[in-house]
Amino acid sequence: MNPLALLLGRRLANRESQARKIGALEGVPAMGLDALASVAYGPEAALMLLMPLGAAAPTVLGWLLLPIIILLGLLCLSYWQTIQAYRARGGAYVVARENLGVPAGLVAAAALLIDYILNVAVGISAGVGALVSVLPRLHPHMLGLCLVVLAALTLLNLRGTPESGRVLAVPAYAFLACFAGLFAFGLFRAIVAHGNPQPLRAPVPLAAAATSGAGVWLLLRAFASGCTAMTGVEAVSNSMSAFRDPKERHGHRTLGIIVIALGLMLASLAWLVPAYRIGAMAQSRPGYRTVLAQLAGAITGENAFYYVTMASLLAVLVLSANTSFTAFPRLCRNLAQDGYLPESFAIAGRRLEYSIGLLCLAGCAAVLLVAFEGITDRLIPLFAIGAFTGFALSQFGMAAHWRRAWRERDGTRRGHATRLTFNAVGGVVTTAALLVMVVAKFREGAWITLFLMAGGYALLHRIHRYYRKLRVLKGNDATLHAHPASRTAAIVVIERWNRPARDALEFAMGMADEVFALHLARLTGPEQKEPPDLRRRWNANVEVPLRAAGREPPHLRIVEAHYRTLHRPILEWIAELRREDAGLRVAVVLQQQVKQHWLQHLLHAHRAQSLRRHLAHANVPFLAIVIVPWFADADAAPPFPDPHDEAE
Amino acid sequence: MNPLALLLGRRLANRESQARKIGALEGVPAMGLDALASVAYGPEAALMLLMPLGAAAPTVLGWLLLPIIILLGLLCLSYWQTIQAYRARGGAYVVARENLGVPAGLVAAAALLIDYILNVAVGISAGVGALVSVLPRLHPHMLGLCLVVLAALTLLNLRGTPESGRVLAVPAYAFLACFAGLFAFGLFRAIVAHGNPQPLRAPVPLAAAATSGAGVWLLLRAFASGCTAMTGVEAVSNSMSAFRDPKERHGHRTLGIIVIALGLMLASLAWLVPAYRIGAMAQSRPGYRTVLAQLAGAITGENAFYYVTMASLLAVLVLSANTSFTAFPRLCRNLAQDGYLPESFAIAGRRLEYSIGLLCLAGCAAVLLVAFEGITDRLIPLFAIGAFTGFALSQFGMAAHWRRAWRERDGTRRGHATRLTFNAVGGVVTTAALLVMVVAKFREGAWITLFLMAGGYALLHRIHRYYRKLRVLKGNDATLHAHPASRTAAIVVIERWNRPARDALEFAMGMADEVFALHLARLTGPEQKEPPDLRRRWNANVEVPLRAAGREPPHLRIVEAHYRTLHRPILEWIAELRREDAGLRVAVVLQQQVKQHWLQHLLHAHRAQSLRRHLAHANVPFLAIVIVPWFADADAAPPFPDPHDEAE
Repeated sequence: MNPLALLLGRRLANRESQARKIGALEGVPAMGLDALASVAYGPEAALMLLMPLGAAAPTVLGWLLLPIIILLGLLCLSYWQTIQAYRARGGAYVVARENLGVPAGLVAAAALLIDYILNVAVGISAGVGALVSVLPRLHPHMLGLCLVVLAALTLLNLRGTPESGRVLAVPAYAFLACFAGLFAFGLFRAIVAHGNPQPLRAPVPLAAAATSGAGVWLLLRAFASGCTAMTGVEAVSNSMSAFRDPKERHGHRTLGIIVIALGLMLASLAWLVPAYRIGAMAQSRPGYRTVLAQLAGAITGENAFYYVTMASLLAVLVLSANTSFTAFPRLCRNLAQDGYLPESFAIAGRRLEYSIGLLCLAGCAAVLLVAFEGITDRLIPLFAIGAFTGFALSQFGMAAHWRRAWRERDGTRRGHATRLTFNAVGGVVTTAALLVMVVAKFREGAWITLFLMAGGYALLHRIHRYYRKLRVLKGNDATLHAHPASRTAAIVVIERWNRPARDALEFAMGMADEVFALHLARLTGPEQKEPPDLRRRWNANVEVPLRAAGREPPHLRIVEAHYRTLHRPILEWIAELRREDAGLRVAVVLQQQVKQHWLQHLLHAHRAQSLRRHLAHANVPFLAIVIVPWFADADAAPPFPDPHDEAE
Repeated sequence: MNPLALLLGRRLANRESQARKIGALEGVPAMGLDALASVAYGPEAALMLLMPLGAAAPTVLGWLLLPIIILLGLLCLSYWQTIQAYRARGGAYVVARENLGVPAGLVAAAALLIDYILNVAVGISAGVGALVSVLPRLHPHMLGLCLVVLAALTLLNLRGTPESGRVLAVPAYAFLACFAGLFAFGLFRAIVAHGNPQPLRAPVPLAAAATSGAGVWLLLRAFASGCTAMTGVEAVSNSMSAFRDPKERHGHRTLGIIVIALGLMLASLAWLVPAYRIGAMAQSRPGYRTVLAQLAGAITGENAFYYVTMASLLAVLVLSANTSFTAFPRLCRNLAQDGYLPESFAIAGRRLEYSIGLLCLAGCAAVLLVAFEGITDRLIPLFAIGAFTGFALSQFGMAAHWRRAWRERDGTRRGHATRLTFNAVGGVVTTAALLVMVVAKFREGAWITLFLMAGGYALLHRIHRYYRKLRVLKGNDATLHAHPASRTAAIVVIERWNRPARDALEFAMGMADEVFALHLARLTGPEQKEPPDLRRRWNANVEVPLRAAGREPPHLRIVEAHYRTLHRPILEWIAELRREDAGLRVAVVLQQQVKQHWLQHLLHAHRAQSLRRHLAHANVPFLAIVIVPWFADADAAPPFPDPHDEAE
């Protein structure tokens, strides 16, 4: 059995594509894990920055989460509309390109591509890091674990988005259920205790006095850090092609579930963190516990439920990279369809997934993981900038969209003005958050992201220029010459006289007006001896039967290959033939043994391949290279036609 | 300029081969460094084994070197005759194969191939090890240095044997001159001092009392160890094709110089080591000095001449691997010509060297060096067994040769009987030495060599079987069918209508009786849109002009590629055409864009290549694949015919 079929499943036909589309049930695990997992680090990062405020820090965080939740709502609205307006493709690239122009679209695309790659590396290594801190015995195998997770996710997604959605549904919904229970119980206990619940396991004590005041810059930085909780929300609109009809409804549902779950979790945190007086700890401190671990311990104590909840969080963290695996190949495919990436990115693979994009993502992430030995802390400052660039451009793009729609319809539909306002406000706020991020993290690595974005932009642009130039060179109005002026000559290259040589000669005689046979002497070196009976065999097997049939036999020419290359004497001969007939079509006929076992590649000198390459590169007009394949062991070859051909 | 030309020099023509042959002057450095360098370790290894004899050890070594010198003389005689009898090819493989049968030849070949590879790894790492012990600062770069030496020797030999012979002449003749001077002065001092010269720098003091007696097994082991000084002597007869005419004379001279130099050095050691009372030291002892270093210090003191002498020894040790680089590719070429190795090993490369063999040797040695991190001590027990297997088989082979010659000539020439005796004695002695080696070193690694020899033998045998089977399958008496029964149909695969498509179609119409055009729909996936104007362009550019010219235009067929593969619908169609005409020849015509820059390979989906491979592997009778190459940027391509084509 085909090993690829075993690994990835059978090759799917185009007509099966509808059955391969997903709904919201698979959509949430396939696209939402990044957004859901970010509830674990966004608020924690913000709280960490607020710690100098001492006992006031949790309360300030609570208030700070409010505008973040509002911004999340704005973003959700914006993407809701994007899904409506761009049913088939969607995403920041398409929205920005159509409404703000190609450069804006390419900036959004480059930003998102980089962010998706970083998300895979950072997501996996952060998740594995959390796993290792629970099971320190695994520490030496950190990089190996990261690569195993990466390989598993790649394989899963190569099998298809429906498969990955179904497999990841288990951890995703377990996570949602656990945290819903945890937060509900926490809120219940807080209400029962009149807002002052007693933690069952005490969180880390907070410093009573503030060591510094709550300056505007500190709050802005904490706000920007907290905003990272929103990354991943754009994945749904980038992945619209994954949904089944009606796409719009399934997209809306998926987006809705993700955003509502994320919003509720953030709102619960805004209430519970101050209520249980949770603080953030530096990761380097001994006995480090995450904010969520402290909160869960405070609410339920360290019982079985606590461990299940933490395990589900860990699983979602490790698997959060899957969002990139869903969105990245589809973004690449959109870019490739418009000629901004190589055409291979737009080709549906064995399982109707865009496998080149998938493999490219996995490859880039693997390089990052190996280069940083699985510890990608230094990549975190590079992160989220791409996502927010995408957010901002997508919002402004939608604003421009509604503005145009408003003008075109003469302001008859009032909804447009409201939408325009929402999107413009969202665009301004996300741009502000982006600027705060860039300024705050510029020296720690944000400049690298900006640099990479510029490089990505230039690359996309160059690729597009190449395809545009190629299209012009190919033209599309070449008219056939109805009166072919010239004849066709075939040159059959013969090493020895044998069955493959005869087959090639017969093919040539069936298709050309004139046939020549060419034998190259001393092809392997000055000491090579000639097959002594070539002329005799040629006479007996070619000339005699043809003359008996009244046909003129082709001429056998023996030329010394002074430089041991096949192409040089052939090209010289073609030039000679062309001096007599400038428009003569020449077909060079080669026998090529089909290698039926990979070891055979080592046993042959690959002269036919090398000759084919050299002839093709010689820029000879009116030249064709004819390959007559030949099976040494025809019985061992697959029969023709092959009834069981699995289209491989 | 072509980078390969810069690195290796211009491509040489077959007719230049005579000018590329060498004489004895270049032959000694090119082939002799292994034998000459072994004077440094053979006697030392024997002396080390004799050390338990205390003060008697140097004297015993002196007597032990006598039979070794005699054996060397016998070997020299044997190879002298081999060179005479097998002028063009020579070597243990040819001699054993022709006189003792194919299996003996293959054993000799496998043994020598393994020994040559080991010699490169062990020679370079031992030489670099000696260099590092002089300059300890280089110690961390040991492996790097080994690989640099390997790369330099590879490059030098890829440029050609004459070049390597000329470059290595400097260290080789400096070495000979230094040691001639050293030994002459040492003998002079010894004679002047009536056999009891005073060492200028005292050697390591010898233990006065023997800790054990001189048992037969000890003497045999010391003899076998001392015999390793002879390895490398066979290289001349393996490399006969390198010499210019008269080959025999140049071969004899080279062999003579090498053996006389080696013999004189061994004889000098036999005298000088006891005279100056030199002992061997364990390499692990602090202040370790080699036997030759002690002897040179004792004779001249540590003056400038001493350092020059030691430097020349070091250079010869490091470069002793060159012997393998001369002999290995030529042995491989002999094997490939007889069908025991892939045919590529018999193809003369750019500089008329057998570059595949060279690269294969360098690759194997590099793997060994990297695997053992440049410290190949553990490989030494594996060594020399191959060389002695070659010696023994070559001697017995020559004995059989003279025996046959004697019988055929009815004993009229008495010389044959003498030669037979010499070779038989030589064969018996080398076999005895071989057996002692194998027994003494069996557990330390000699079994690995035997194992590898068996593997090598099996491999050579398998390869030969493949080529023999292939020759039978190809046949050589296939008679042309003088009355071709069938017509030729061409299927032109068209993605869009453009200039390359037109060129391919015109070619097909010039060579086939029937032409069909095929467009495959939804080739990139279920969501692909069709080029909407293909039918319109086909009509305007093909059908209208052809009908106007009174010709029937080819039929354009649009087929859905359900599985996004090109070959499947094409194969189905061929099967369909064959149902009407079972003998129909089918040519599938593909346009292939010639990639003019390596980056272009990333930008295209390589459909033509993939289709070509799939069609070739489908085992369709009477099928040819026609490639019409197409240049996107014909102006940037080389002109045709290219007057400056350097045959690359």
